[in-house]
Amino acid sequence: MSETVTDFREHALTLATGARRGARALAQTPSATKNRALTELARRLTGSQSHLGEANRKDLEAGRSQGLTKPLLDRLALTGAGLRAMAAGVLTIAELPDPVGELLAEWVRPNGITISKVRVPIGVILFIYESRPNVTVDAFALCMKSGNAVILRGGSEAFHSNQALLRVIRESLRAGGVSEEAAQMVATTDRAAVGELLRLREHIDLVIPRGGYDLIRRVTEESRIPVIKHYAGVCHTYVDATADLNMAEEVCFNAKVQRPAVCNAMETLLVHEAVAAKFLPAMAQRFLAAGVELRGCPRTRALVPQSKAATEESWRTEYLDLTLNVRVVDSLEEAIAHINTFGTQHSDAIVTLDEEAAEQFAREVDSAAVFVNCSTRLHDGGEFGFGAEVGISTDRIHARGPMALPELTIYKYIVRGTGQLRQ
Amino acid sequence: MSETVTDFREHALTLATGARRGARALAQTPSATKNRALTELARRLTGSQSHLGEANRKDLEAGRSQGLTKPLLDRLALTGAGLRAMAAGVLTIAELPDPVGELLAEWVRPNGITISKVRVPIGVILFIYESRPNVTVDAFALCMKSGNAVILRGGSEAFHSNQALLRVIRESLRAGGVSEEAAQMVATTDRAAVGELLRLREHIDLVIPRGGYDLIRRVTEESRIPVIKHYAGVCHTYVDATADLNMAEEVCFNAKVQRPAVCNAMETLLVHEAVAAKFLPAMAQRFLAAGVELRGCPRTRALVPQSKAATEESWRTEYLDLTLNVRVVDSLEEAIAHINTFGTQHSDAIVTLDEEAAEQFAREVDSAAVFVNCSTRLHDGGEFGFGAEVGISTDRIHARGPMALPELTIYKYIVRGTGQLRQ
Repeated sequence: MSETVTDFREHALTLATGARRGARALAQTPSATKNRALTELARRLTGSQSHLGEANRKDLEAGRSQGLTKPLLDRLALTGAGLRAMAAGVLTIAELPDPVGELLAEWVRPNGITISKVRVPIGVILFIYESRPNVTVDAFALCMKSGNAVILRGGSEAFHSNQALLRVIRESLRAGGVSEEAAQMVATTDRAAVGELLRLREHIDLVIPRGGYDLIRRVTEESRIPVIKHYAGVCHTYVDATADLNMAEEVCFNAKVQRPAVCNAMETLLVHEAVAAKFLPAMAQRFLAAGVELRGCPRTRALVPQSKAATEESWRTEYLDLTLNVRVVDSLEEAIAHINTFGTQHSDAIVTLDEEAAEQFAREVDSAAVFVNCSTRLHDGGEFGFGAEVGISTDRIHARGPMALPELTIYKYIVRGTGQLRQ
Repeated sequence: MSETVTDFREHALTLATGARRGARALAQTPSATKNRALTELARRLTGSQSHLGEANRKDLEAGRSQGLTKPLLDRLALTGAGLRAMAAGVLTIAELPDPVGELLAEWVRPNGITISKVRVPIGVILFIYESRPNVTVDAFALCMKSGNAVILRGGSEAFHSNQALLRVIRESLRAGGVSEEAAQMVATTDRAAVGELLRLREHIDLVIPRGGYDLIRRVTEESRIPVIKHYAGVCHTYVDATADLNMAEEVCFNAKVQRPAVCNAMETLLVHEAVAAKFLPAMAQRFLAAGVELRGCPRTRALVPQSKAATEESWRTEYLDLTLNVRVVDSLEEAIAHINTFGTQHSDAIVTLDEEAAEQFAREVDSAAVFVNCSTRLHDGGEFGFGAEVGISTDRIHARGPMALPELTIYKYIVRGTGQLRQ
């Protein structure tokens, strides 16, 4: 698939310098123009896009011959319903307020200067992802609306579909009056091109990798550009001694089973020993009936004989599947210590009627989002009301949790005076 | 100086795991306790600290024998006045509001969950700097007040002074009731220790390098941890066609001469051709009288024969000294293009009476801080009213411009519900 690109360094430079020009133009582009391009994109996605279908068939055929599983092939397919959902997502983003230019703060200093803190785009973003082709459109729309040029590098199994989507995106930019250079895409599946891009710190301002362990590790090791990771979630739900056990059962079942393959799904259930005997056997029955494999501590296995034995390795594993660790703990403090030791600071929940316990858990569990009496699955830009997200940041600078439009911006200071000097 | 450290990997791990324990404790430490430790520190810095003087003498003697210049030796000396200024700085930080726990936003979603966005510390910060020993105290105080443990690595010429300051810092932490592990310092001048620290991304959350080109380049190349750079300033002042030329002269003189060795000092003066003949000769006289060496474009040299010739290299150089580039431009747009091409997106000013020109400059110059009718030297945490700063970020994520207490924090989400599930 990479026959057209032979010089990866040159390809990377072409993408990055084009993106920089695109970013400079886009930073000064009015909201109405950006929204017009997004509306054009939505229209084109649901129009008759024969070349989209053709490109997608190429990927699907290649996927079949490489033996991709049915669920993976389903994720890859660009169906009419899928394209309509993409278009709806783009229109949602068009309707969101433009973060660029927002006045974040303004104050006057004793010497008379006025300081304004104003939102501006970050600049050029390299977005590396493994997911379905719809992420291509989402990520482009969010970056463009927030005034950033984006260099997209999706999964190789969706290569032709993504290239075809780029054509639609660029047609829409042109039709809307936005610089086409705002959208760039790596034109080869050879990893060497990504390696070259990750060295271009003069031209690229931020790298966002979204995916599994290998992808994140490679990007973090190689990048000389700031990185915000969208990484694994080893998420917990702790059922406290005072929990409403009916609520606990619903919250735990939802956190594990509603969609097990995503980062905010529960991987470990912690139960206070005071309620373990009452809570665990019925809860385990429900999980087992839903096809969940259980891995328990010795006390769990005494109550739930069907449970396999958990190891220290289990506590650290993101299964992304119908497998669940279960551990009985002696106290709230032991639950917090377990989460801060084995978790990935992603999404962790407590079910309790004790307000003090809830507040201690919320304060001391060091995660991007802490949930009291609700499901970890609510950790999502849509559920939070952000309209859309590029993903959930697991880093501890710039943005934590869902990254939506404001999280794709930074600020500048504008200082207005009447001749003030430094004394 | 590094005879006590032989295993750099082990030393780095000891520092980083100690800092992580310190950070966990500090994140839950009340403001009053943190402020008590800061007050203790201020008291001890101005008390009789014979071992501080002794350690400083060792550094000064070593500096003299290594042939450090008089200004560098002056910067190194811990005088009584210097210690009193440090103590005053620490008390200022004690009086600033504690950013930790601040409620940044709170909203209720249609399904009834309440989402709170709360400021929390970043965690463990590795601060690498080249400057005077007072930076040691400032950086510690800012990191500690904002709930972060810090690993300090100062310039090797101040090694003994910094180690002695660490003793005072740790005595103050103990006296105030704060975990001593919140302050760590690299106990060797061997760079290998920094190299090992920069790989510990499990234990360290953020690296802040503050210094010159070589330091920043090395850290950026080696680090596997997120970095926020405090880097060079190639700063400009543009005198527009409509400028008040008296104001322009004062603003330009201040920006260049008041303290030329710092990152927000002006390195290049741009002058609109309409006022060049009227403005430049007198301005140049004043610069020359102050000992400033001028490097001009051909039109500048025609007006100011004493000016040497500027090259493209000149436009990119951060002199940090009494040297100034001067260029005559045809338009506001040419000035903006020059700044966005040759500048470092740090601090850039326009002097103009034309409000539209001012707004265009403020919008299109892509710098951390843009100044209208005032000096670039005002780009400073103190001047902005932040009380103190660890430095000026030249990066485009997390924080831009002065990094003070809030910029040393991040946030978490706390989501409170009554059994809500993901649908």
